[in-house]
Amino acid sequence: MTGTPVPPDRDGPAPFTAEDYAARMRRAADAAAEAGLDGVLVAPGPDLVWLTGYRPVETERLTLLVLRPGHDPVLVVPTLEAPDAAQAPGGSALTLRDWTDGKDPYEAAASLLTADGRYGISDNAWALHLLGLRERLPDAGHVALTRALPMLRAVKDAAELDRLAAAGAAADAAYEEIRKVPFAGRREREVAGDLADLLRHFGHSQVDFTIVASGPNGANPHHEAGERVIERGDMVVLDFGGLKHGYGSDTTRTVHVGEPTEEERRVHDLVRAAQEAGFRAVRPGAACQDVDRAARAVIADAGYGEYFIHRTGHGIGVTTHEPPYMIEGEEQPLVPGMCFSVEPGVYLPGRFGVRIEDIVTVTEDGGRRMNNTPREMAMVD
Amino acid sequence: MTGTPVPPDRDGPAPFTAEDYAARMRRAADAAAEAGLDGVLVAPGPDLVWLTGYRPVETERLTLLVLRPGHDPVLVVPTLEAPDAAQAPGGSALTLRDWTDGKDPYEAAASLLTADGRYGISDNAWALHLLGLRERLPDAGHVALTRALPMLRAVKDAAELDRLAAAGAAADAAYEEIRKVPFAGRREREVAGDLADLLRHFGHSQVDFTIVASGPNGANPHHEAGERVIERGDMVVLDFGGLKHGYGSDTTRTVHVGEPTEEERRVHDLVRAAQEAGFRAVRPGAACQDVDRAARAVIADAGYGEYFIHRTGHGIGVTTHEPPYMIEGEEQPLVPGMCFSVEPGVYLPGRFGVRIEDIVTVTEDGGRRMNNTPREMAMVD
Repeated sequence: MTGTPVPPDRDGPAPFTAEDYAARMRRAADAAAEAGLDGVLVAPGPDLVWLTGYRPVETERLTLLVLRPGHDPVLVVPTLEAPDAAQAPGGSALTLRDWTDGKDPYEAAASLLTADGRYGISDNAWALHLLGLRERLPDAGHVALTRALPMLRAVKDAAELDRLAAAGAAADAAYEEIRKVPFAGRREREVAGDLADLLRHFGHSQVDFTIVASGPNGANPHHEAGERVIERGDMVVLDFGGLKHGYGSDTTRTVHVGEPTEEERRVHDLVRAAQEAGFRAVRPGAACQDVDRAARAVIADAGYGEYFIHRTGHGIGVTTHEPPYMIEGEEQPLVPGMCFSVEPGVYLPGRFGVRIEDIVTVTEDGGRRMNNTPREMAMVD
Repeated sequence: MTGTPVPPDRDGPAPFTAEDYAARMRRAADAAAEAGLDGVLVAPGPDLVWLTGYRPVETERLTLLVLRPGHDPVLVVPTLEAPDAAQAPGGSALTLRDWTDGKDPYEAAASLLTADGRYGISDNAWALHLLGLRERLPDAGHVALTRALPMLRAVKDAAELDRLAAAGAAADAAYEEIRKVPFAGRREREVAGDLADLLRHFGHSQVDFTIVASGPNGANPHHEAGERVIERGDMVVLDFGGLKHGYGSDTTRTVHVGEPTEEERRVHDLVRAAQEAGFRAVRPGAACQDVDRAARAVIADAGYGEYFIHRTGHGIGVTTHEPPYMIEGEEQPLVPGMCFSVEPGVYLPGRFGVRIEDIVTVTEDGGRRMNNTPREMAMVD
């Protein structure tokens, strides 16, 4: 058998209604029409969760939401799974077209599509299914959804922002608690375990990452958490997040075990200033790349430009990592309701690293932080 | 940030060596040549784990193993992840071709491919990546790997069979223990939690499913475990499995809370006889569908044919669900080393269900069970 069901959130905010999901599906169909597409093909995963609240696991058996301008949404689904789909939060806004084992699911899907149509398809749809569709309709065109409609999920409504704020507050609470645990003499993995426990304690149903990068490990932004024993004198990058009530948290603070050196203070202050500059660049109409440029300029001006080796931020919503990206070359204008990380860093190979990250949402006249713990360097034991 | 790393197995069997992985990659390239393919494109997931031991999470950043007859294996990988890939168990058998953020990863991959070549590609490769490859090489052909080379991972070697046997023994130990816990008065979810704990206790690093389907829920083969309170007089289907040392377990026993009725005994005996018949049909040269037919005939002859509503079995290896499938129409001959479930069932809507499942491997002269707990109906409290 397959998959582990996601447990329902308990004591959470009022759930999204079938009408909420219907509105999202209409918005997606309208956006497709505007982009010159004949429709959108949605596979199990974050797109389907956002559009319908339905969370099956992607397998070799085709489940596919078909959205077309001017038509009602149709979900192609295995017969055995149709009852689950019908009971999903957005189920009543869907027409189900089920297929039984032994039948051709691609025929069921193809009958909804235009032979020479052009369709957006979820990035994470399986190649197996895309090839199955192409076999049936070889003249149809397909384009990955984040290329075709990169901003489909990017602008959050009020209820989504409430959830993102709650996830941010939970991550903040976890950070306040983790500062009280012992660091020196323990392995990174142990502190990472504490962080995961805290995120769950404060209501996360899913922990996506708990990075604890101490001393020289902090200089590798890709480091997760390992067997290294944290020592007095280490800088420690703490970067952690996951999902609460279906929406993401992602925050980074860099702490110090005992007293920092003058250089460590200077680099930390620099990254803090860069993060502040990035935050202040957030306002409607600014481009995504402006946020990156603002943070990067501070670090470059101080002579550390070559040590800031990643983009400044990424979007967040029903996943902890999605468009829009705050990166040079991304000219997408910021729109109120967009929500993303601002996370510059400085990485000194073989020595230490500093990163500071908040989730920020675009308001009518600037930005609002979803993380509000102090950004000054905290001392831990 | 993305993904949660899989913890390394501790106290496990001797790990597979780079030479083991190199041999598997040669086997895949040879099989591709034999099937008239120019190569195999392998995405993160079970195929990549089996071929290299490398376990990245599939994301929007391309990681792709390219296997071509007559060439050494090449892994296209993001620069930041290249050190992890190099340290993977099969890393030394790979040539890494890394690409940095901002560069086109599909160009890196395309330079290894023939413009009009025909390639097998992992079923679960993301549509984003397949479309990226097609954009670079529009005249190339792609076919899903389970269609092109369905038996690539199907025949297990001695070291793999040892792991499958160990996983089966751990599942058996969990079953012996779960029979001792109270059933009546507890929710299905609670017993499912006990089962998951037991699987982990006996060495599973990953629990894929713990189905507890009581009373009428047992009549739905798709039921997982819910809020229903188990009652005295219930039949309870227990179907559970996951991964131990990287290889799968999957077993089902149907127990009874208190004394069964005569009909419940009769149906249970029938399913047991069908499972035995399926097992006895396992031998080299028999077709997959012969196993299904043998089990199904027993149930049909007793007049319950319409209540056996799924195929008889599926393969198992580095996943708990893969080819070969024991289903009518599958003429693939059985080969020593293949390993799959034999799991007939009878489902009486609104009343109860019975399923009995063992993992079976094909030997030189028949079949060998990887599960060895009693198949008689056990009484539980």
